[in-house]
Amino acid sequence: MTKKYNIAIVGATGAVGEQLRYLLAQSKIPYDKVRLLASSRSAGKELSVGDEKYTVEELTADSFEGIDIAFFSAGGDRSKEFAPKAVEAGAVVVDNTSAYRMDEDTPLIVPEVNQEAMDNHHGLIANPNCSTIQMVMALRPIEKAFGLKRVIVSTYQAVSGAGTRAVLEMENQFRDILSGDEIDEPKILPVAGDEKHYQMAFNVLAQIDKFQDNHYTFEEMKMTNETKKILGRPDLPVSATCVRVPVVKGHAESVYIEIDRDDVTIEDLMAVLDQADNVIVEDDVKQQVYPQPVNAVNRPETFVGRIRQDLDVKNGFHLWIVSDNLWKGAAYNSIEIAETLIARNLI
Amino acid sequence: MTKKYNIAIVGATGAVGEQLRYLLAQSKIPYDKVRLLASSRSAGKELSVGDEKYTVEELTADSFEGIDIAFFSAGGDRSKEFAPKAVEAGAVVVDNTSAYRMDEDTPLIVPEVNQEAMDNHHGLIANPNCSTIQMVMALRPIEKAFGLKRVIVSTYQAVSGAGTRAVLEMENQFRDILSGDEIDEPKILPVAGDEKHYQMAFNVLAQIDKFQDNHYTFEEMKMTNETKKILGRPDLPVSATCVRVPVVKGHAESVYIEIDRDDVTIEDLMAVLDQADNVIVEDDVKQQVYPQPVNAVNRPETFVGRIRQDLDVKNGFHLWIVSDNLWKGAAYNSIEIAETLIARNLI
Repeated sequence: MTKKYNIAIVGATGAVGEQLRYLLAQSKIPYDKVRLLASSRSAGKELSVGDEKYTVEELTADSFEGIDIAFFSAGGDRSKEFAPKAVEAGAVVVDNTSAYRMDEDTPLIVPEVNQEAMDNHHGLIANPNCSTIQMVMALRPIEKAFGLKRVIVSTYQAVSGAGTRAVLEMENQFRDILSGDEIDEPKILPVAGDEKHYQMAFNVLAQIDKFQDNHYTFEEMKMTNETKKILGRPDLPVSATCVRVPVVKGHAESVYIEIDRDDVTIEDLMAVLDQADNVIVEDDVKQQVYPQPVNAVNRPETFVGRIRQDLDVKNGFHLWIVSDNLWKGAAYNSIEIAETLIARNLI
Repeated sequence: MTKKYNIAIVGATGAVGEQLRYLLAQSKIPYDKVRLLASSRSAGKELSVGDEKYTVEELTADSFEGIDIAFFSAGGDRSKEFAPKAVEAGAVVVDNTSAYRMDEDTPLIVPEVNQEAMDNHHGLIANPNCSTIQMVMALRPIEKAFGLKRVIVSTYQAVSGAGTRAVLEMENQFRDILSGDEIDEPKILPVAGDEKHYQMAFNVLAQIDKFQDNHYTFEEMKMTNETKKILGRPDLPVSATCVRVPVVKGHAESVYIEIDRDDVTIEDLMAVLDQADNVIVEDDVKQQVYPQPVNAVNRPETFVGRIRQDLDVKNGFHLWIVSDNLWKGAAYNSIEIAETLIARNLI
């Protein structure tokens, strides 16, 4: 008889929580009990996982008794407080926040890229930042085949990455502007926890997460540091500019890379990406085929296109990488981590 | 008595034409007669320039008799056919299309950057592409002070750059999606004259203008070639990725540069940009201050912020450059070219 796992989802009512509930039901994880956890505000709500209805319970230190796998997606503070309790109770935590990602003892995992790094886990696996995941999905196969010397990325990130309330704020702004009305005072975007808030509808905001002392945002530093950790390349130069655009779902990235070899063609790159698990090359300029956020929604793959050789640097290439930030960027990657834990007998 | 100039605006009914009419009335150009020209479809319409009403006339080979300055903004084909007629008739043409930009004999002008290149004009001055103008506005002062070795740019371009019909198409898509309806079949964006058309609302499209054989779009090649020409640096490596975002007005650009010197700080860059004509530095990460398209609308300046040193390359810097694509990117720059022609006694 296959072992069945008891699952907890912390942050079950949020944007990622919703996708986790949906994808869990579709996953290869043989599960038995499911416990949906959230703040006391949401306790008592009925939510479904597949065909089953569950009542949301308040997250407490005792929530993890009997739980085998706990998905955390309720913000870094919640993970810092409760993930250790879950591990103590015997669960393996798959944490979708930034709380443990850069901890030396915590594997930071994209299963297609570095699943072997899970083998010595101590009960906690970190799910990388959404914008990092889709980038390393494309970079790893290229690095393996041709080496990788440098990465410069500019992102076009969807508003769902800032949560459900951010999406509602943007949608209301669009409604007001299109009706000729003034928008309400912005209260959430670009960063709910920061001081100032700006219009997102018909605008782009070059701030995701808070600013750091080096003038980069925390999101930009996540892309830099997490990419180095996942690829096992602390030396790799990676600089990011992270920008929020008025899109609901699907992050896009304009990525410049330099590879080790200078005899590689765009056809070579396409061939390597075409072979990579869960990467789809969408690149046919004659047919106007290139990745688009709206086409990536509710798809588990990472889409790569607009592959061009730099006009001046022989080993330089430009890529356009798109993926569903709530799927591969969050919930789907978390579910895959859990599936891989089971497949590798690590739980 | 100051000389007064007779003005023609070709494409008076379009998005740029509208701004040309508005800005002409506010300009330093002492003008007498104004002739508004468009296709036969628009002939007979009444449009205003300042407080005066004018009747739109059909553009013909005879439209330019008595005209001193003719602004062209009705597409490259119209410029190719009619700009020579205007020059023959004795007008100086300020052409806002790509028709003549790369002609060796045609100066390509951003007055703050290279107005001396106008001095030997042959009756035709080209206004650069919108995305190029705002980039060189920021690059020139940096180049002068510290040298410039390399440019990589990813753009976030507003839909008004594709014309008024494109904006209406996007707005209708937003209305439909926000009401829970299906959108109409896209017919204009990303490129009216191309085969396939895609949803723009809540999406980003990595195609502006048609694809070239080298897999870059024509817009991307415009940024490369025009930047080299304006800066007088045919050797300068410039590669671009041009992307349309669901914004009405205001282009943004994430620009990576390498400069000659490796002892320059972000404060040095800010000081140089601060001194530059019509460049405004908006960069205060403590106060969440950075350029935004919605704040740049109907402003003649180019806004620069998010200035950061690359994390690994000492002479590498990242900039975020925003400007109104219909103003400095088109109409305002054209008006400035005409003002400069007069100021330099070139007309």
